[in-house]
Amino acid sequence: MASKKMNKEKSVLVIRKEPESLVPCGIPYTFGTLTSVDEDIKPLTGAKKAGVEFLIDEVISIDTTKKTLFLKNSESVSYEKLILALGSEPVVPPISGSDLEGVFTVRKEFDYIKKMNEPLKQAKNVVVVGAGFIGVEMSDEIVKNGTNVTLIEAMDTILPLAFDADFSETARKSLQNHGVKLRVGEMVKQINGINGTVSEVKLKSGETIPADMVLFAIGYRANTELAQNAGLHIGVYNGIITDDYLRTSAPDVFAVGDCAEHRDYFTHKVSRVMLASISASEARIAGMNLYDLNVIRQTKGCIAVFSTSLGDVSLGAAGLTEKAAITEGFSVVTGNYSNFDHHPKKLPGTTAQTVKLVFAKKGGLLLGAQISGGLSTGEMINILGLAIQKAMTMEELSIFQYGTQPLLTAGPGLYPIPQAAIDAIAKSGINSLLL
Amino acid sequence: MASKKMNKEKSVLVIRKEPESLVPCGIPYTFGTLTSVDEDIKPLTGAKKAGVEFLIDEVISIDTTKKTLFLKNSESVSYEKLILALGSEPVVPPISGSDLEGVFTVRKEFDYIKKMNEPLKQAKNVVVVGAGFIGVEMSDEIVKNGTNVTLIEAMDTILPLAFDADFSETARKSLQNHGVKLRVGEMVKQINGINGTVSEVKLKSGETIPADMVLFAIGYRANTELAQNAGLHIGVYNGIITDDYLRTSAPDVFAVGDCAEHRDYFTHKVSRVMLASISASEARIAGMNLYDLNVIRQTKGCIAVFSTSLGDVSLGAAGLTEKAAITEGFSVVTGNYSNFDHHPKKLPGTTAQTVKLVFAKKGGLLLGAQISGGLSTGEMINILGLAIQKAMTMEELSIFQYGTQPLLTAGPGLYPIPQAAIDAIAKSGINSLLL
Repeated sequence: MASKKMNKEKSVLVIRKEPESLVPCGIPYTFGTLTSVDEDIKPLTGAKKAGVEFLIDEVISIDTTKKTLFLKNSESVSYEKLILALGSEPVVPPISGSDLEGVFTVRKEFDYIKKMNEPLKQAKNVVVVGAGFIGVEMSDEIVKNGTNVTLIEAMDTILPLAFDADFSETARKSLQNHGVKLRVGEMVKQINGINGTVSEVKLKSGETIPADMVLFAIGYRANTELAQNAGLHIGVYNGIITDDYLRTSAPDVFAVGDCAEHRDYFTHKVSRVMLASISASEARIAGMNLYDLNVIRQTKGCIAVFSTSLGDVSLGAAGLTEKAAITEGFSVVTGNYSNFDHHPKKLPGTTAQTVKLVFAKKGGLLLGAQISGGLSTGEMINILGLAIQKAMTMEELSIFQYGTQPLLTAGPGLYPIPQAAIDAIAKSGINSLLL
Repeated sequence: MASKKMNKEKSVLVIRKEPESLVPCGIPYTFGTLTSVDEDIKPLTGAKKAGVEFLIDEVISIDTTKKTLFLKNSESVSYEKLILALGSEPVVPPISGSDLEGVFTVRKEFDYIKKMNEPLKQAKNVVVVGAGFIGVEMSDEIVKNGTNVTLIEAMDTILPLAFDADFSETARKSLQNHGVKLRVGEMVKQINGINGTVSEVKLKSGETIPADMVLFAIGYRANTELAQNAGLHIGVYNGIITDDYLRTSAPDVFAVGDCAEHRDYFTHKVSRVMLASISASEARIAGMNLYDLNVIRQTKGCIAVFSTSLGDVSLGAAGLTEKAAITEGFSVVTGNYSNFDHHPKKLPGTTAQTVKLVFAKKGGLLLGAQISGGLSTGEMINILGLAIQKAMTMEELSIFQYGTQPLLTAGPGLYPIPQAAIDAIAKSGINSLLL
């Protein structure tokens, strides 16, 4: 889309395997809230209207010297500029029984999700492995069908990469209130079956959980075989290495999204984060810089702004957790504030809201933010993602200008972002970090 | 609160007339959604817990030389530092009949709102004068009781200061769908009564509207008599003149909120904007800078970040409208994008969402933003308020990092802020504004 919008005289062709593709983040909702997988189909009307063309086929190899793509079912296609958006594949652990009928991952493919949808809705006992965003959202949706859901997480808390223990605890309570059973600090030893179909999951602790279906949500791996075969530089975690404009090691070849190697915003280390919003941002940057380095990439590395909604509680995170910041070597000071997301709190839909800000002690820059609250959490974490991106300090955040409205936000005097920033200033014992 | 938090060794005393005070922005909801005025009382537990003391009394004069306040009912009080938060008074126009029984304004006083609450809920025909935020929210709430509500606005659109015509139109439709009758481009000529009580409102056009109650919401005037009598410098619109740290012309006397003169963010002209969120920000700045200029005020002048919720539609605005920017003398380019606030749109609670960004043609800086959408609008406009505050350009916004979630935000590829920014870049015909 951005490629076409910024380069109107050029023709833009999308080659992909599936005629229909899914809104990837919407997949969990096809198992509960939505009535069918078809409701999660990504509409292409906007892109088609903008003049983007589509070809349903599969690229089997790339000749970067001749700038040619070889296809499975049709003739080869030549290009001036090539953008690789190859995505990622779910990881299946090398566990005995992981090849049994009834063992699934969450693949971002229409046919696959369609195939697993009905059996999953019919299942009595489902075991979900991995309490990252996909695992918790899947569990929270599947349990809505009255299914017996057990979620297994190897680390001691759920959503451990995005949240510190206090916020993970809020998420845990909400999930458990909805009936999801949790096993944290626990791993799958093997999956047993009867007649080739999964029947139970055996944990390392010795516990055995009955299961008609097992769902692995333990991570994704960049899908880069095509790029490797074409000789592109590949990074340590299998991602295609790019520069800040998403250009790969081959001339006029770009890579965006899960197939590209990402770097962390604060340290510029290689990062394993994969998010649709990061992919979309990268696609825009690539699209706008195809023929000209037009738009300076201001943010080098991924802040990783997330949000999720587990029943009555929504959670958001941006940047580093307190734990991650300390592990990374920062001296930190946090600011915390809890109140309500409407004012007065007697208004309908009012949800308790907690904001935690993590600042670097030296310089006072915002390193990370976590929110738990109501439906406004998704946009509120975007405020803090932007604050990280603009290198804001606790003092700036203490006086930033915001708007409030009874039905939409916390009250003006108790708006949690400046309040949490003031808490951090008071705790830091340094009344002026900027002077 | 900020005064106490940042100056723990000092005692902080709040002197005010009323034992109970209202959440001011919550007042409209006491006439519809809430069951009583008591549900809108502002809790003081937080401030009291922080050690702030309260004295119910009225200051009748200030001696800024002797640093002494003279009170109505008790002894005088001396101060080291004085913060004036005198608020504002609703304007009553000099119209014949405006002194009749049944004619009210929206005063931010517990007893006054309590007194008008029951009669207003009982009234059959209510005329609201002025379609700013207070007038539209009052109308939208009163109509929920089955009351016949007519809203009169002198300008051609509702919410004319915050929104361009297209967004005002969205608000108009939502209000009218709820049953509020509108008269725009129309003014009240006189109010007629029977036995001293209002019976009808006569408009300049000649139309007569039956009315048991009339509500003026045409503006507020800074409440600064006390400050004037104390010899403080007063500005053209009656506000107390302050410097960037909210310090008045008298030593150690600060003024914050509606009683202080405000300036516009872009031009630094005197501005008539009054918002609780501005008051709260100013209170924090004054509190943190009482004894020391601790926190540099980064934002000089008011961006004016608003939001409101009219039935199924929420609207937000920050900075200048397109119209105001052009009137001010800016050459502008706008970016527009419409889609949905959830993804896929079949998810429950999905609302159509439109974002308009107004940029300065030269330099590409964001001057203003308008949003219509669902319940996330209040926090989403805060993202754009922050973007204005950090002087962001269309190119920066086109690649800013955000998070998305199906139930909480628009989709990653269609997230409206970068999409609207790309629209502006494409329209501006300048692919690089920064190079």
